[in-house]
Amino acid sequence: MILAFIGTAGSGKTTLSGAFGRYLKENGYSVGYVNLDTGVRDLPYSPDIDVRDDVTSWKIMEKGYGPNGAIVESYDRLLPRVNVYVSEITKLAEEREYIIIDTPGQMETFLFHEFGVKLMDGLPNPLAVYLFSPDILKKPEDFCFVRFFSLMIDLRLGTTTVPALSKIDTVENLERYRRFLDDIDYLTSRLKLEPSTQGLLAYRMCSALPELAPPTRVLYLSAVTGEGFDELETLAYEHHCTCGDLT
Amino acid sequence: MILAFIGTAGSGKTTLSGAFGRYLKENGYSVGYVNLDTGVRDLPYSPDIDVRDDVTSWKIMEKGYGPNGAIVESYDRLLPRVNVYVSEITKLAEEREYIIIDTPGQMETFLFHEFGVKLMDGLPNPLAVYLFSPDILKKPEDFCFVRFFSLMIDLRLGTTTVPALSKIDTVENLERYRRFLDDIDYLTSRLKLEPSTQGLLAYRMCSALPELAPPTRVLYLSAVTGEGFDELETLAYEHHCTCGDLT
Repeated sequence: MILAFIGTAGSGKTTLSGAFGRYLKENGYSVGYVNLDTGVRDLPYSPDIDVRDDVTSWKIMEKGYGPNGAIVESYDRLLPRVNVYVSEITKLAEEREYIIIDTPGQMETFLFHEFGVKLMDGLPNPLAVYLFSPDILKKPEDFCFVRFFSLMIDLRLGTTTVPALSKIDTVENLERYRRFLDDIDYLTSRLKLEPSTQGLLAYRMCSALPELAPPTRVLYLSAVTGEGFDELETLAYEHHCTCGDLT
Repeated sequence: MILAFIGTAGSGKTTLSGAFGRYLKENGYSVGYVNLDTGVRDLPYSPDIDVRDDVTSWKIMEKGYGPNGAIVESYDRLLPRVNVYVSEITKLAEEREYIIIDTPGQMETFLFHEFGVKLMDGLPNPLAVYLFSPDILKKPEDFCFVRFFSLMIDLRLGTTTVPALSKIDTVENLERYRRFLDDIDYLTSRLKLEPSTQGLLAYRMCSALPELAPPTRVLYLSAVTGEGFDELETLAYEHHCTCGDLT
């Protein structure tokens, strides 16, 4: 069962990779870890496969690259080896019950670079977990944005993607987040009240969502308390068995 | 007239900012430049407003941050000054005919960080130009992805966004790109032939696009030859006059 945590820098991918892996191990599963971030210094888990064995972005920066250029360059250099990674991860997935893939620090490196697209395309039936943190959700439009973003990841990588609010231990009013994220009809009715052009676009997009998206639960996760880990485990298992129906 | 070039690292934002600015000046316009990239070393233009006067990501890296962490941290540090930037850019826009905003190297820093969202929200009627380079367009689904991504920027920032293929001087068969990008009906009919789940999702999304999106032209730009600059100029002018109708 291959799980890939995808999200922007700071969304909690690495911390969750470590915490969810520990949770699985405590529940008796064998777990393999894959680190795809060329720029990370410390990891809260021991990776079985690690792109930093081949390339690190800070070594590239020593040659005079700026941070953005170095990150892109590091995946340019990894690209010729993408099939090797696909083989190694696939082999590891035959030996372990769960594989956790911790994707690049910057999400766009994964979504827009051929390395990410080819890697995910080559893996057997991975499940993508799209992590977003509560601090990017201010207006009703933002909830529409993250629901659609999950679909964009699916569209780009061809990988079933489940949206997951991370860091829920930092949130006071989780029910408000749940209502906006779980109930598309409620969100749509709220967006109808927004008078701006942005609100109208969000209303239109949100109205179309039920027809566009395969029905998907939203996960609510905390790496600190372990909340939601049981649901993620169940969902990963269902994905593995049913290939995509995550109602 | 405020133009913001938005796109992933390597999509050509900085080069285009310089080249399009020169084009405008050669045509008699006064131009102001704004650099929002905390990680860039050299610019092909002289910025009138530059975030690096306040914060640079490489100085943060000297304190032990990795490249991803340093980039995010740099915008955390800029956030308290976002209203100052809004005022300065607005003032500059009163003095110059065109303002060109060169956004952060990593697009997600701008779309997912409050600094980007608040900045764009505060500016008077900016136009976002979403740049994507030909190398991310391989499959028919990818064309659907970029058309939708343009909409996602609009949804996130509340800013009219025009999709623009960059680096067209590197493309041999531009007509193929144009056909997929300009003619949504053609793209939809092609996606209907894709048998995969990804193809089906793309087909559904693309079919919904005409109802969701305000009608928008796609631009085809080259910073090397200057192709498409006249169209961008026209479009910016139309946006300025009509507030959003970019048929």
